[in-house]
Amino acid sequence: MTTLADCEALDAADPLRAVRDRFELPKGVVYLDGNSLGALPKGVAERLDRAIREEWGQGLIRSWNKAGWIDLPARCGAKIARLIGARDDEVIVADSTSVDLFKLASAALTMTGRRVLVAEAGDFPTDLYILQGLCAQTGAELRMVAPDAIEATLTDEVAALVLTHVNYRTGEIHDMAALTRAAQAKGALSIWDLSHSAGVLDVDLNAANADLAVGCGYKYLNGGPGAPAYVFVASRWREPFTQPLTGWLGHAQPFAFVDAYEPAPGIHRALCGTPPVLSMIALEAGLGAFDGVDIHAVRAKAKSLGDLFITLVDERLCDHGFEVAGPRDGARRGGQVSLRHPQAYGVCQALIEREAIPDFRAPDVVRFGFAPLYTRHADVWEAVERLCAVMAEKAFADKRFQVRSQVT
Amino acid sequence: MTTLADCEALDAADPLRAVRDRFELPKGVVYLDGNSLGALPKGVAERLDRAIREEWGQGLIRSWNKAGWIDLPARCGAKIARLIGARDDEVIVADSTSVDLFKLASAALTMTGRRVLVAEAGDFPTDLYILQGLCAQTGAELRMVAPDAIEATLTDEVAALVLTHVNYRTGEIHDMAALTRAAQAKGALSIWDLSHSAGVLDVDLNAANADLAVGCGYKYLNGGPGAPAYVFVASRWREPFTQPLTGWLGHAQPFAFVDAYEPAPGIHRALCGTPPVLSMIALEAGLGAFDGVDIHAVRAKAKSLGDLFITLVDERLCDHGFEVAGPRDGARRGGQVSLRHPQAYGVCQALIEREAIPDFRAPDVVRFGFAPLYTRHADVWEAVERLCAVMAEKAFADKRFQVRSQVT
Repeated sequence: MTTLADCEALDAADPLRAVRDRFELPKGVVYLDGNSLGALPKGVAERLDRAIREEWGQGLIRSWNKAGWIDLPARCGAKIARLIGARDDEVIVADSTSVDLFKLASAALTMTGRRVLVAEAGDFPTDLYILQGLCAQTGAELRMVAPDAIEATLTDEVAALVLTHVNYRTGEIHDMAALTRAAQAKGALSIWDLSHSAGVLDVDLNAANADLAVGCGYKYLNGGPGAPAYVFVASRWREPFTQPLTGWLGHAQPFAFVDAYEPAPGIHRALCGTPPVLSMIALEAGLGAFDGVDIHAVRAKAKSLGDLFITLVDERLCDHGFEVAGPRDGARRGGQVSLRHPQAYGVCQALIEREAIPDFRAPDVVRFGFAPLYTRHADVWEAVERLCAVMAEKAFADKRFQVRSQVT
Repeated sequence: MTTLADCEALDAADPLRAVRDRFELPKGVVYLDGNSLGALPKGVAERLDRAIREEWGQGLIRSWNKAGWIDLPARCGAKIARLIGARDDEVIVADSTSVDLFKLASAALTMTGRRVLVAEAGDFPTDLYILQGLCAQTGAELRMVAPDAIEATLTDEVAALVLTHVNYRTGEIHDMAALTRAAQAKGALSIWDLSHSAGVLDVDLNAANADLAVGCGYKYLNGGPGAPAYVFVASRWREPFTQPLTGWLGHAQPFAFVDAYEPAPGIHRALCGTPPVLSMIALEAGLGAFDGVDIHAVRAKAKSLGDLFITLVDERLCDHGFEVAGPRDGARRGGQVSLRHPQAYGVCQALIEREAIPDFRAPDVVRFGFAPLYTRHADVWEAVERLCAVMAEKAFADKRFQVRSQVT
């Protein structure tokens, strides 16, 4: 049987163990929802205070230049690019994941001249909804298929295959390189949503020859609640890339104030309106937690934490009706382990009451996210301790299901 | 001749004079660019610090419910609604002005089944660019016409008339009620961009029978740099309203995680993805500066400040080649006075060096914005003093033009 001492030994040998000190974490809480909202990196509050009091309050409009606000989208983009195998000038921060996916899927229709989009049924809802909205608007067609039917659905009518790299419910990783090849073999583009993989897996977009990608700033990237999202456009698509949300910051000369839109020459054409500067400064500061961190070590630790969790659940909770909902094999799994349970909602609520915080995904999944920058193997142990207590006391039994507004 | 004592007498009689104390303003600066970036309201820095350290840092994911993040878009929308003559449930905060205008213009095409959009040539660029992007995507047609040709361009092919209520360059106010009637007489919708009128004019959308509107949070609303924008959908359009950016927060049950999009019953269907919470909290806190303020008094003061500025320019600068670019009649003018000058760029830069801050709009306009909540008549006097000094010293002569990245 695995012991707490075993877990502590793993932490002692962890090359990332010092990175946890870069975060402000509430005492006594075992936070296993960094895949939904990343923890607060130290220094962010101070940085925002300076941005508000000095840059906004004292600098006022001058801060667009003097404080470099105008360069935030590209500056943040370059920091994220290094975590996802992209060139600095292939990534820019803008808008939300949903809005950015609309840009990319629309661009794929335009660039291919085709009318069909393929997605995975059960993929993250906003991705599916955005594709539905785009199709309703343009007359394009969305084909939502089961994972094992994806390759067969790729035909020469398909403009793009749109997939979340790591499934939000199960944590299963899609083979980005293989599916990109399969799409491209039919003349389709690959569009990857990295929301559940950037900052936890060693994503390598260019090694996989990916075409387009989006991702979220507030999960493993620790950019703060609702942090802006990012767009990746592979260099080879830079010139043909055309998207319909042609706001002024995507213009070749935004400050010339001419009447006719002309797209900026590079990745800036993916921008639309004026960005939420305060949220973007928080994202930039939060990304600092990755400074000097080897993303391969992050990925290795994510696997180690998830493997440990599964081992402990097997060893200590096998009589309680849990089932691992995604891959047991760490090579096929992102930064989370999902457990199915008939009382998943109540179990999740009872754990939260005991300050071990996973999240619930309807109808029967409890997701345990292991953000490697600040989660220790000893935290995994403690989470299982509390889960054992919940099950022993049947503390889940009195939890009535209600749909809660917990943003993923 | 008008004297400083006259200006001070106007300030002494100003019913809004105490409101200035609600703002943090840099000493020695005469800030006349609140029409571009509103000043910092007191309390915003403290509110954000609490949001970061307590709500994000300690509350983590639980703060979506416990700290009410999930309700921010509707809560901020209701606060803005009261400033623009709308019902609380007709306004919601989301995304940027550009993204929101895309939603509304696309909705107008869908709801009318028509294919033509009419806009004003020379209107704020991002509005024109967004309409161009939408037309390129959907095959609709954009007709950009001079202001005096607008009514003649309204035909029964037109889906919507899209106008900025107050022109960003000249400050001229469009007659919202008359143009709305003219559009509706042809079966078209009116879409108003309130970016340069909300928070400075007594906008009354429902009195004008307006159909749809957008506006910016970071100008006269003082929401902070790049603050989120807002959408207005008149109650009668609530049910037919359909927009293509169908992100998960616009879903009827965003937390049910089903595959098929179903629009939320009310104004929430104008939402798309997860909002930038920190920027939205700053906007909410900033809107507090309007608490208890009579918007009619705000509008009256804007007129008074602008009238005073024109008088002082006439009295003291008539030999220096300035021309009032917009209406001299305060009833037809928003919160700014624009001066044309052959050396406009140099004049603007020289003024900024002297810490009187207007802004420049290519090719030859200096805009002086008079945000009534914190601008005094004595500030107008001081701005003209500094402008007189710039002209007497020909301080503008050595300023070489460069396109600056100053966000409007």
